[in-house]
Amino acid sequence: MSGHPLWTFAHALRKGLGAQDAAEIAPTLHDDVDWAIFGPIDMFPYLGARQGKEAAIAAIKQIADNFRLYKFKQEDVVLGDGSASALLRCSLNANDDDRPISVRIATFMRFREGKLMSLRAVIDTFDLVEQALGRRIDLPRVA
Amino acid sequence: MSGHPLWTFAHALRKGLGAQDAAEIAPTLHDDVDWAIFGPIDMFPYLGARQGKEAAIAAIKQIADNFRLYKFKQEDVVLGDGSASALLRCSLNANDDDRPISVRIATFMRFREGKLMSLRAVIDTFDLVEQALGRRIDLPRVA
Repeated sequence: MSGHPLWTFAHALRKGLGAQDAAEIAPTLHDDVDWAIFGPIDMFPYLGARQGKEAAIAAIKQIADNFRLYKFKQEDVVLGDGSASALLRCSLNANDDDRPISVRIATFMRFREGKLMSLRAVIDTFDLVEQALGRRIDLPRVA
Repeated sequence: MSGHPLWTFAHALRKGLGAQDAAEIAPTLHDDVDWAIFGPIDMFPYLGARQGKEAAIAAIKQIADNFRLYKFKQEDVVLGDGSASALLRCSLNANDDDRPISVRIATFMRFREGKLMSLRAVIDTFDLVEQALGRRIDLPRVA
């Protein structure tokens, strides 16, 4: 499935984030894209749900404004007919203090007419929060 | 793909967790299964990596000892050839205090000879931790 729309989107995303230019990504998004990256939006306001291309691009732009993508590894990919999922390991640098952050992101995508129609992303957010804070959060053992 | 090994594994997992009996699940796991649910193992010692069927079953048993599965919704599924991914919304009750917990779990699976050979699961762990604590964790806004 070399012509799978995942590759077009992934290529644009990598290029756009690398160049910190969300405009690279816009042509690969459906106008009515349904976009959601689950996570604590109080700390990371560019996470959460977005409806439509403009709102999704605005969120991507905010992410690109805050982080530089350093490395991007596909740990797993499953391709369906008009759908795909990918388990990604992303190495980023925070733009403000250059702090390195490495997060695992699970993405589920649906495509229509070759463009991204829906994205759901799940992140190991506790790990992300600790890395962003630069310290561990003390937790009780509940089991 | 009605005969996809995902359905055999998912059925056994649901039945096993519902009955709090990990033995239901054992026949669907490959002896050398490579199992990892990413998350804070200090708080949830049954998360993390396990090698082999016995270790995976022990982790599932610990989960079943701590939680009862109340509801299980497949929000997205992508089926590949010998692989699958599923975005799940699981509603659980903690056994000790009956606290309801609802978590989104992204799973990536590989099968060999019809049995689960590899599982990688990503959870929105910050949300999970807050629900398990029963309170919000104050976070600074970093962006």
